[in-house]
Order: sequence, then C-alpha cells, then structure tokens
Amino acid sequence: MAPAATELGIVLRVLVESEAAAAALPAHEAVVGLPGDPEAIQRLLAHPRPDVVTWEHEHIPDEVFAACAAAGVPARPGARALLHARDKIAMRTLMDSLDIPGPAWREVAREEDVAEFVAAHGGRAVLKTARGGYDGKGVQVIGQASQARDWLDAAAHGGPRVLIEEAVPFDREIAALVARRPSGDIAAWVSVESIQRDGVCSEVIAPAPGLGAVLEARAVEIATRVATALDVTGVLAVEMFQVGQELVVNELAMRPHNSGHWTMDGAVTGQFEQHLRAVLDLPLGDTAPRAPVSVMANVLGGTRGDLTTALARLTDPGVKVHLYGKEVRPGRKVGHVTVCGTTADAVYERAVAAAAIVAQQGDGER
Amino acid sequence: MAPAATELGIVLRVLVESEAAAAALPAHEAVVGLPGDPEAIQRLLAHPRPDVVTWEHEHIPDEVFAACAAAGVPARPGARALLHARDKIAMRTLMDSLDIPGPAWREVAREEDVAEFVAAHGGRAVLKTARGGYDGKGVQVIGQASQARDWLDAAAHGGPRVLIEEAVPFDREIAALVARRPSGDIAAWVSVESIQRDGVCSEVIAPAPGLGAVLEARAVEIATRVATALDVTGVLAVEMFQVGQELVVNELAMRPHNSGHWTMDGAVTGQFEQHLRAVLDLPLGDTAPRAPVSVMANVLGGTRGDLTTALARLTDPGVKVHLYGKEVRPGRKVGHVTVCGTTADAVYERAVAAAAIVAQQGDGER
Repeated sequence: MAPAATELGIVLRVLVESEAAAAALPAHEAVVGLPGDPEAIQRLLAHPRPDVVTWEHEHIPDEVFAACAAAGVPARPGARALLHARDKIAMRTLMDSLDIPGPAWREVAREEDVAEFVAAHGGRAVLKTARGGYDGKGVQVIGQASQARDWLDAAAHGGPRVLIEEAVPFDREIAALVARRPSGDIAAWVSVESIQRDGVCSEVIAPAPGLGAVLEARAVEIATRVATALDVTGVLAVEMFQVGQELVVNELAMRPHNSGHWTMDGAVTGQFEQHLRAVLDLPLGDTAPRAPVSVMANVLGGTRGDLTTALARLTDPGVKVHLYGKEVRPGRKVGHVTVCGTTADAVYERAVAAAAIVAQQGDGER
Repeated sequence: MAPAATELGIVLRVLVESEAAAAALPAHEAVVGLPGDPEAIQRLLAHPRPDVVTWEHEHIPDEVFAACAAAGVPARPGARALLHARDKIAMRTLMDSLDIPGPAWREVAREEDVAEFVAAHGGRAVLKTARGGYDGKGVQVIGQASQARDWLDAAAHGGPRVLIEEAVPFDREIAALVARRPSGDIAAWVSVESIQRDGVCSEVIAPAPGLGAVLEARAVEIATRVATALDVTGVLAVEMFQVGQELVVNELAMRPHNSGHWTMDGAVTGQFEQHLRAVLDLPLGDTAPRAPVSVMANVLGGTRGDLTTALARLTDPGVKVHLYGKEVRPGRKVGHVTVCGTTADAVYERAVAAAAIVAQQGDGER
C-alpha cells in the first residue's frame, strides 16, 4: 500500500513487527510493535492524529477498535464488518440471513456432529476453524469424524470454534472485488477466475473467461450486498465457487487481496490506491480494465534466494514484475507477475512461464 | 526511480543531500552527502560494491566518474555521453558532426560576436550558458548585445561558456524518448508533443497529435543515432522543435525526463523501470502505449501547501496522480497527473483541469 500512498501524498504511519521492517518501509513513519500491544497502539494513534486507521489483515484484536474509538480516529473497515472476514461462523450466519447461496454448514462441537454431517453429505466434507486460517491452513477435507478430533479438542479448551461445510462440487473459483467509501459509493472491478494449487492462489485471470453477463452481474451484486449490509469501507474481495450457473460464497476478505493484484497493472486504478481512497472517503478511481485480459501469477518461493537475478532471463518484454522483498522460503508468496493482452490462453501461458522464471523454478538448464 | 526499483527487487544506494531526504526515501540504503564530496562518493561505492552507478541529473563532477572507474563500478551513462547533456557547446558540436539539423549557433566571448550574430539572424537570438541551465534558467531571448554582458563577464571570469543560437520559428516542441542497454538494444516510446509555459514544461501529449509516420520515424531515428554515437546507456530524451516537416534538435537529457512521465501510466513499461533495466543491462520492457492517447500535466506549486487535500475535489475517476512530496513553492514542479483516453482534445482538457485542482489553483470558490 505504501507506493500507492506515496504517489497520492498520503503519509502512512505503519505498525511494523521489527526495526528491520521499519527501515525497509517506504513510508514516512513506522511504529514498531504488535497489534496486541496497547502501548504500540497508543503511539500509532498519537499526535498528529491519523485521519483513519486501516488494516492489511483481518486478525485485529477488539482492543484496537476500542482504542481507535477512544482516540476519535475512524477504523475502516470497522469491527463489525471485519468480524465477518475473520470468523467463518459469523460470515456463514450473515450469508444465510442475506439469503446469499452458500454450502450447507453447521458449527460442530462433538465428533458425533461431524459424523452425522459427513454421512448426510456423501461421506466427505470440509472442516474449518472459524478463525485463524489462511492459504489452506485451518481447512481440511475429511471423510472420518476422527480427523476432526484435534480441532474439536482445541475448541473445547479455548481454541477457535469449528464448523463443517458441504464439499461443493465446483467447476471453478470466481472472485468479485469491490471498494466502498463511507459515503456509500461502490466501485467494482471485473470479476476474475482464481486458480488454486494446494489451497494457495496460483493464478488469477481477469475477467473470468466466459463468465457471461448474468453471472458477472450476479458476482458484483453479491459483493455489493455484502459491502452494504456490513458497512464495509475499503476493498472487499468475495471468493466464490461457480457451480454450473450458480455462485456460492466461499470466503470474504476486507483488504487488498491476492485476487486483486492484477488491478495494479491491468486496471486504471489498482486495489491499493482504491483502498486508500475508500478508507479516506475520497472519490473512487476508475476500475475499468486496461486490456481485454490480464493474468496475474504468484511467484512462489523455491530454493534460490535472489529473485532479481532472474530478470536477466526474463525476455518477455510485457511482463510486469512485483517482488515483495520477503525472505524466500519454499512455497511462500514472494512476488507476482502480471501480463496484459488480448487472448486469455496466450496471456495465461506467458504469465505462468514468467512466474516460473522469476521464482527460479522449472528450468532444467540451470 | 525508487518505487520501480522496489518492484523489481533492486536495492538502491542513494546519495542524498540530507538526513531528512534519507528518512523519506523508499530505498534500503542512503548515503548523505553531495556529488562533490569524495568521502561520500567512497561510501557510495563501498562494499558491497554496487553493480552500476547511475544519475538523476547531468551535473556530475568528473571526479565521480574517476572514482567509479577506480572502484571498478560501471557508470551509466558514462562521462562522455553525459557531457553532451550538460554542456550545450559539446552537444551542438556533436549534432553538427552527426549531420543532425539544429539551429545556427556559435560560441560567443565578446559583445561584438553577439551583435554580429543577432544582426545576421533578424535582430533576435537565443543566448545560453553552455552549462548549468534547466527549466528556462541559463536561457534568454535577446535583441541587444548588451543583454549578454553579465553572462559574458561571468564566462571571462571562470563562469560557464556562452553560446548563441538562432531563434527557431518553430511550430511546436516534440520529444523523442528511447532507452539503450550496454549490449546495444534500443527501445523507443512514441514521440510526444511538449507544451512549455515560461520555459517550463507544462503538458505532454503522447503520441504527438498528427505527427505522422515520417516525422515519428525521423524523431526516433535522431534519438537512436545520438544514443548510439554517444554510447548512451539508460533513458535518453531528445527535445526537438518541429518546423514544418523538419525536426531540429533543441536539448538532450540522459535520464528519466519530464517528457516521459506519461509512460508511468500510459505505456506498458515506464521510464523509471526502463532506465533501471537499461543501466543494469537487463532485457528492456515493452514501450507500447496502453491507450490511444495519454496526457501528462505538471502540477506546479501555488500558494497552498497540502496538495493531498485537493484529492477530495478531484472527481474525475481516471486521473492518475503523482505527488513528489516536495515542499510547495510557487511555480515549482511538485507532482504531475496523467490521463489516458481516446481523444487528444478531451484527454488534454481533463489533464489540465485535474492538474489545476491538485495544485489548488484556478478555483475561484476557495
């Protein structure tokens, strides 16, 4: 978010985990500390008071919202909205109340609950912790109630509550991305197809090929209803399953999201700039795509550390490279590439090939 | 250049004037000092040795090039190339030797030289200091030899040499922008029309409306010949006058240049990214425009300081805003805006209107 802030002349005061993170941060101010440290939060909210506080992940303690309220600084998105991005039971309950399609689900506390649900849904279901999951963590496909034992035990001893969902026989995954400002204006980007490998987003194709006007409108309508119902401010990503001509909500994210990284190069306004505009209640930017198709491919870490050296072998001149400066670990998202063009298949191939080169993977000659 | 470097995972070690500049700099390393300070230059070149040294302006002392050579660090562009961007007599001499059209000119040392040249060219000519000028400084249109007295006196006492040029009766100003890597690859963006007010670039229209294929090819050919002849590495901007169907070279810049700011939003690869790729001898990026027309308008400082507050009144959703974080002073370039679209006139109007709003100028209601 920092480069987008810099261009707009917005000064960020960022809560960072370490002095090293502060030194590397392209922002004017950094406060070293954790969200759970009240003293750090006070420094974050100190004079000169920020105009707004926002988040880059959902795991924000309630005390932080209380501190913002006490300091008179708006928190955007607010506590109620964000709860639905970090608690899957709250989210499923809300979707049901809004009559938005989702998988069959229930909260489970005992193995008998799990066994009953699995038996009723074809012998296979998806077990989730209500909180704390990301990138495939906190999610498992199970066939036996005994596979739920550890999480149920943890839940009984103060760990996150557990829910079980029908394993949706989906055709593919779709994500809708919108931004909403406090005054209520909403802007939607085109909806995308998101391709996952091992529970981690691998590529995103914008717009989702062959989605059609009806489902495109439906995806945006679902995201708009969620944003409005929850008074979401900032960027909202709604991850959905496509099942034939139905869309079924899978998860919510209330922040710039991996499914929206393509917007940095492929749309007039990128999601990081739009999030800043939205939470500051500034006029929203144009979300129109800048090319018929854009494909984002994540750069997943391998065994080689210095990704920049790979640029010498990246001879496709249209590839936009974004490296995050993170330490490379196998499977970690350490960057992404985006390619814009006219034909989904060709652009997809270029993006995947470029991501492999930048990750320093998949070239037998080295 | 720092945001582009960050995306590519390139670490900059930047020579900056002050601790405040270092703190605001979105780069991993900063060395506080001036180009004329040998000790600062040694710290810039210290272990770990940089892969390359490059510049954001042309006023680099010879000693810096010597220090780079002694340290075995390539300086790109090199001393010979850069000389022609900072010394107008060297540049004019080179253009003549390459048979590239320019105005009639000569070096002048005495008022009689000036009087003779002015008389021979219709009673009006352009006097320039060979070095040290920018944004209209070091340039004056004169009708009387006496107007040259101060600069001639200064030249006689160790100040910059002085030249006089024919006042070209130009139709408009054109700029060609190319990038060249040491291996010789050259990539050109489309040529632009540059509109100046009071000697300062005000707007840039890309591509230059109605330039035509012949003059477009001619502009790129001139820039390519200059880049090749001088072994330029990095971005080269060639500012030219259009006189009917002729192009006449006005000035050279060997760095990302105001005439190329539109590329950040309007081309697949922006000039700052391309400059880094070029000086590091990486494959050059695609220079294709991303829209039929892009217009860049400089944000010139007025009397109000906080430009970010103007974003609340900037309701055109397609405007890309770039603020530089500089202290606002009247007439100072403190940012720019770019608008991409399909019709030059409409896009131009939007860009000019947006720049006025961001500059907090020209709205009688405030």
